Amino acid sequence: MAGADPHHDVQPSQVRHRVVIVGAGFGGLAVARALGNSAIDVTVIDRRNHNLFQPLLYQVATAALSPADISEPIRRTLGRFRNIDVKLAEVTGVDPTAKVVKLGDGAEIGYDRLVLATGSDYNYFGHDEWRAWAPGLKTIHEARLIRQRLLLAFEKAELSQDPEEKKALLTSVIIGGGPTGVEMAGAIAELGRFMITRDFRKLEPDHLRVILIEAGPRILAAFPENLTRWARSSLEKAGVEVMTNVPVEDVRRGEIVAGGKVIRTGCVIWGAGVKASPAANWLGIEGGPASRIKVNPDLSIPELPDIYAIGDTSAAFGEDGKLLPALAQVAKQQGEYLGNALRHEILEGKKPAPFRFHNRGNTAVIGRNAAIFDFGRWTLKGRLAWLLWALIHVYLLVNFEKRLLVSIQWIWRYLTRQRGARIIDENAAAAIPSSTERTET
Amino acid sequence: MAGADPHHDVQPSQVRHRVVIVGAGFGGLAVARALGNSAIDVTVIDRRNHNLFQPLLYQVATAALSPADISEPIRRTLGRFRNIDVKLAEVTGVDPTAKVVKLGDGAEIGYDRLVLATGSDYNYFGHDEWRAWAPGLKTIHEARLIRQRLLLAFEKAELSQDPEEKKALLTSVIIGGGPTGVEMAGAIAELGRFMITRDFRKLEPDHLRVILIEAGPRILAAFPENLTRWARSSLEKAGVEVMTNVPVEDVRRGEIVAGGKVIRTGCVIWGAGVKASPAANWLGIEGGPASRIKVNPDLSIPELPDIYAIGDTSAAFGEDGKLLPALAQVAKQQGEYLGNALRHEILEGKKPAPFRFHNRGNTAVIGRNAAIFDFGRWTLKGRLAWLLWALIHVYLLVNFEKRLLVSIQWIWRYLTRQRGARIIDENAAAAIPSSTERTET
Repeated sequence: MAGADPHHDVQPSQVRHRVVIVGAGFGGLAVARALGNSAIDVTVIDRRNHNLFQPLLYQVATAALSPADISEPIRRTLGRFRNIDVKLAEVTGVDPTAKVVKLGDGAEIGYDRLVLATGSDYNYFGHDEWRAWAPGLKTIHEARLIRQRLLLAFEKAELSQDPEEKKALLTSVIIGGGPTGVEMAGAIAELGRFMITRDFRKLEPDHLRVILIEAGPRILAAFPENLTRWARSSLEKAGVEVMTNVPVEDVRRGEIVAGGKVIRTGCVIWGAGVKASPAANWLGIEGGPASRIKVNPDLSIPELPDIYAIGDTSAAFGEDGKLLPALAQVAKQQGEYLGNALRHEILEGKKPAPFRFHNRGNTAVIGRNAAIFDFGRWTLKGRLAWLLWALIHVYLLVNFEKRLLVSIQWIWRYLTRQRGARIIDENAAAAIPSSTERTET
Repeated sequence: MAGADPHHDVQPSQVRHRVVIVGAGFGGLAVARALGNSAIDVTVIDRRNHNLFQPLLYQVATAALSPADISEPIRRTLGRFRNIDVKLAEVTGVDPTAKVVKLGDGAEIGYDRLVLATGSDYNYFGHDEWRAWAPGLKTIHEARLIRQRLLLAFEKAELSQDPEEKKALLTSVIIGGGPTGVEMAGAIAELGRFMITRDFRKLEPDHLRVILIEAGPRILAAFPENLTRWARSSLEKAGVEVMTNVPVEDVRRGEIVAGGKVIRTGCVIWGAGVKASPAANWLGIEGGPASRIKVNPDLSIPELPDIYAIGDTSAAFGEDGKLLPALAQVAKQQGEYLGNALRHEILEGKKPAPFRFHNRGNTAVIGRNAAIFDFGRWTLKGRLAWLLWALIHVYLLVNFEKRLLVSIQWIWRYLTRQRGARIIDENAAAAIPSSTERTET
């Protein structure tokens, strides 16, 4: 039986409560940690073996960091808690009546309480066929795919004899002006200019185009307008063309259509629209805004009191009545709250106070010496914001080794402008046809 | 035209000699460097964009290092030489009469002198279908594939309810007792034991089996017998079962047949037999031993005086009349020799002295505190050899950043036994069926 575990150092006669957590992102891990080494059996299920520090994933996609610098095996993070069991498995459904989670291989895991922390995915607004040409940036696989396409486009441009094709290959398009889109645009502009001036013989810096397309009236819409304006002008100084109020109409092999115009391109990245992963479907309930699940003030799901949703999966509201954003800090605070609440409730019978979000500040980085911070009451921009951004992100990494490795790479990059991970996966040459055609991996 | 390059800071009227180098491994890069910033046009063609420090690739396969720690873009290495042009392309043939190299996309590159430095591949002795189940360790792609299979086998074993299947999944088989096989076996034993005791709840250390299979009478046959004996007993102490005089008869899904016995396994690695890549076929000539190309004392190919072969591609002989081994130091020395020889010959008309190999010592590492060195006149084994091995390999890395990053990771690992890169690529769970069946990527 799934529940039996000979290694637990408790009396087998004692009936223990079982909490199952689906998803080991910021939220799920925080719940698990708060329940660590308690008299509660915890099972964490994830379809990946690692937790990913998503805020720095764009640096993997732009060849600045390695995947291992920002990911950590879930088992390693939770290994010291003897009451926590980790399963690498795909969840395919939930039966709230039988109180079981169904796995891809047909197995079922029983629960007393279930926490859904499955995160979010990009929203292609009904055009899922665009994903093949415009991957989002959610997993290591996608980051590597983007890195490969980007670097390969430069290699193909170097080989091309056709000036128009050269220009098309050196044009990168980022769709969506949120923090990820802005970070990618800034990083690609820096990387591209550096590679062209230093490493390529047959490319000209003025052939490089980086285009950031936003359907709404401004980029970084979650930030105050003065920060947005500054961010836009910083991006433009770095050579990024920012297009606002421009909807994307089509994404095809080697080109996109936006605002009625066809733009030929060597690399497209999707960063627009976020929707919750299919937890609402598992439960057979209606999703709220962006298919996120509506929750009670204690993060339980209405009508399903033993099931909870946190992070990007849930639609919780702040004290101002606004929907809480899909940010790591929200997921983490909700996870800590819920883990402690469950512990007190299960072991001591205490009812929890409602969850309250404490805004730690919102940030986006544009490039070298350029970032913005919004702390609500005050804001920060420029070099100081960039330094603060770097310090905070190094501090948030999971252990001393990763902090040291990332710091060294950042300092090295700051001094030399070199990026250490400019690797195209094997058989890259086999993927070089003479047109802008691209291959899937 | 392929030869035209507007960036070269020389008079276009001047007719310059063109040297084409195929392959940017240790040998090819050494030739290029020796010709750097000379009045000779150099074109380096490789089907990968990076040079790989192969001696540490087994550490990528066993989750100790990241690919970027041991690879460097070829453009970055050669970027400072304005006379060197780098092309990411697949060579498909050579026409020695027309003096052109043919590329995969149909383009042709003319040469005055051609250097073939295409390295070697594993030899499956006519059983190429085994490769799918038993990848070799030559590229980053293969190292990642092995890492993924190894880690996935442990995850599957944790989920399995069948004790026989658990044992099968925790059995790793390494075929070939050369340095790579020995290094892999030692590293897998260390990694496996650490993961089972620390991170997995439902696995027992005595279920772990690491089997090293060698068809010949002893492992590490290139080393003196006393070192081999010591290495074998070190491996056995680390928990590796060493089988010598055992030929492998079949490799299939989930199992191998060796010495008449079927061994069920979760991960097979091929490290037996090396053959030169198909440069001999391009030239339409007969390959020598292990399909390596016979060369004159100046490394030119008999009957084809403007074509040279170095490194694993060539069959050169030492002063003792023995075939030079397929080692990085041979390739590097031949590359340096040939680059200088070509420079002097082309620019000054000087005939080169024959190539002479200087043995810098041969080494293999078994694991923590255990390595062997053979310097010809004297040998070294144990902790001191291991320290020397580590120092030399850090020193041989391409730049200060990589030296620092690798040193930190090694020191961290030495102190904590943790390995930083235990990442299974995405959608790993989709690759978990309930049997020992495996999926290809």
